[in-house]
Amino acid sequence: MASYRFASVYVDPKGSPIRALYKHLGEPGMISFAGGYPDPQLFDEEGLRQASERAFANSKGCLEYGATEGTPGLKNEIVRLMHTRGVSTRPENIIVTTGSQQAFDLVLRVMVEKGDRVLVEQPTYSTNIQAVHAYQANVQSVPVTADGLDVEALERMLASARVSGQLPKLLYTIPNFSNPSGATMPRERRIRLLQLAAQYQLLLVEDDPYGGLRFKGEAVPSLMALAGEVPGAQDWVVHLSSLSKIVAPGLRVGWAVAPVEILRRCSVAKQSADVGSSPWTQSIAAEYLSGGRMTTHLEHICAAYGAKCRALADGLRRELGEALAFHEPSGGMFIWARLTGTVTASELLERAIARGVMFVPGEGFQVDSSDPFTLRLSFATPTLDEVALGTRRLGEALADALARKSPQALPA
Amino acid sequence: MASYRFASVYVDPKGSPIRALYKHLGEPGMISFAGGYPDPQLFDEEGLRQASERAFANSKGCLEYGATEGTPGLKNEIVRLMHTRGVSTRPENIIVTTGSQQAFDLVLRVMVEKGDRVLVEQPTYSTNIQAVHAYQANVQSVPVTADGLDVEALERMLASARVSGQLPKLLYTIPNFSNPSGATMPRERRIRLLQLAAQYQLLLVEDDPYGGLRFKGEAVPSLMALAGEVPGAQDWVVHLSSLSKIVAPGLRVGWAVAPVEILRRCSVAKQSADVGSSPWTQSIAAEYLSGGRMTTHLEHICAAYGAKCRALADGLRRELGEALAFHEPSGGMFIWARLTGTVTASELLERAIARGVMFVPGEGFQVDSSDPFTLRLSFATPTLDEVALGTRRLGEALADALARKSPQALPA
Repeated sequence: MASYRFASVYVDPKGSPIRALYKHLGEPGMISFAGGYPDPQLFDEEGLRQASERAFANSKGCLEYGATEGTPGLKNEIVRLMHTRGVSTRPENIIVTTGSQQAFDLVLRVMVEKGDRVLVEQPTYSTNIQAVHAYQANVQSVPVTADGLDVEALERMLASARVSGQLPKLLYTIPNFSNPSGATMPRERRIRLLQLAAQYQLLLVEDDPYGGLRFKGEAVPSLMALAGEVPGAQDWVVHLSSLSKIVAPGLRVGWAVAPVEILRRCSVAKQSADVGSSPWTQSIAAEYLSGGRMTTHLEHICAAYGAKCRALADGLRRELGEALAFHEPSGGMFIWARLTGTVTASELLERAIARGVMFVPGEGFQVDSSDPFTLRLSFATPTLDEVALGTRRLGEALADALARKSPQALPA
Repeated sequence: MASYRFASVYVDPKGSPIRALYKHLGEPGMISFAGGYPDPQLFDEEGLRQASERAFANSKGCLEYGATEGTPGLKNEIVRLMHTRGVSTRPENIIVTTGSQQAFDLVLRVMVEKGDRVLVEQPTYSTNIQAVHAYQANVQSVPVTADGLDVEALERMLASARVSGQLPKLLYTIPNFSNPSGATMPRERRIRLLQLAAQYQLLLVEDDPYGGLRFKGEAVPSLMALAGEVPGAQDWVVHLSSLSKIVAPGLRVGWAVAPVEILRRCSVAKQSADVGSSPWTQSIAAEYLSGGRMTTHLEHICAAYGAKCRALADGLRRELGEALAFHEPSGGMFIWARLTGTVTASELLERAIARGVMFVPGEGFQVDSSDPFTLRLSFATPTLDEVALGTRRLGEALADALARKSPQALPA
């Protein structure tokens, strides 16, 4: 190898722990609870085909360069979509991005430089831990309870940070059906979080790709929707969302809603990052959103994911019983669980892959004091039959792992 | 405005000088020599419509997440395309990106950090000066002659940098029909450049979006195609290219060909930048490239751009005569010119916009010792009639600017 002088972050970079499992996906009969991938069977293929045809016929601009912030047509549809979610905004406050992943990256670019303090939830989405590390930030984690971000712990951290003069610049949070915890923050916690943001000038980056996937209970308004109720909070919320989980990830259409001063800088950053997102896929997305199929489609996929979630929770209880503790979520794609015995998640994974089932060990979702007994299971992709078979295999894999740990415990 | 603590680069960021002219584009009758935008009249719309239909029918994966490095189908087509350009490569050396802009950004991410020395040509593409500044690099420029990068000047810079122990990490170059200079580096210069790269372990980032747009003369092999002839050089070339100028920018499909060690890191960087490019547009691109229309299409657009280039050069000579000096390029989209009198490019632009014609002043393309008399004119978008009318307006605008400068010189 040539003696390349890489930037320090990329001398020996760690890739995504989820993508590292990709190679096993193709193994015959493998059942995957690993990736957070929407079920392709649930795509509205006919609706997308029609949207694609209309996009090509109606907007010649779809072949040309477009505005860096996004096409006016899609931005208007996003304004309407956000309105149905209780957020009143305008096209000037929106930037269309290549998935909400890019939206977070752009916010980091314009806000964070080496040594800045950035807060994330623990556990949180592994790729976004990577994203923050790429900016050489000083990342710290705030614990998550069954009700999401522990706002009291955050308050203590902020109070002590003020004393040391090291206030964090931003907090990344997934308040709805968090990846990986599945937790949803109740309204009162959100209000308290907004008060802290205003008090400590802490930018809240609210990532909401899963909010549309609620299959039971009542929706809780987003931080951005609630910000108007808390004096001074509106300046301190950036809201990220995406069509990846509710329409199709292949579109690569996400967005940020943000105060204009932040948005303008994200746009400059996006110029040098990629000039602008594809006006073609933006036109398809706009045609799909305006095509009137979204409400029915969402009802359909929420019902399907709800059934899968129940099947996974039931299967885990049936096959692993007391050996696995977890809360059943009300939406999204994930169950976060903890092994209660002596087998770690990595040990279980090794046996599970041999049995033809996969999940993601929890360590990649944790910044510090990592708990090796945690794991993330996604119910999004497998069928109900695969969920039943996969949980049975998990139970068998746990027995295998236990047997390997204490061979003397095996029957003769 | 809230007291946001932006990253230092984004406290008061400068946007693209080209995108800043966008607002005038909509003015009635405006003729633009400003943006480097392919002529929408030259898109192979029928071919792209067919490719889009085939992509949807043939690859269900186009709606799902894909591999971060790009879809196997498109990577194979890129291998074939690169082969027709004299470059022998493999899918493992290719990453598909959202335009070549993102490819450059990813290379910068993995190679450059604050204070590192980075070399660019002077003049060079404005957005990529921005891109390098975003990484807080110490940017220095190497002069460009009518034959592209001045390799002797580079050699002197490298020799003196070795003495000071401050060797630059990479050099960004556009060897074919450069944006903005229009210059093409002859083969001997390329060989010499490759020798210097190997000698000084200088990574050459070769950006080649325009190479396919040659309308006269013989093609010169790319740096990557020639690297095999220079011992040690193959490790030191990253090649960027794109379908934006030869097929359609709305696809947002570009790529990098690079040594595996660099490519693997670009892939990790792309995970946190945007997870991966759209498999949908990648499928459309792959279907288009495999569809057999590319050769005829390229002949068609090269002839059209050649005619436009001649029209612009003739018009400039006819309407501005000795007042404007320039070299006529053999391909690409740009003429780089210099006003020989007392009127600067910004002064001319102000009068030109009033007359209904636009171009880009050269200052945005220069890192240091900026020459205010230079300008970039693109012949890509306007029709032949618009080129004739636009150059006449430029001549009138120059007369206006001169009159304003020395009112006493006006006839009574």
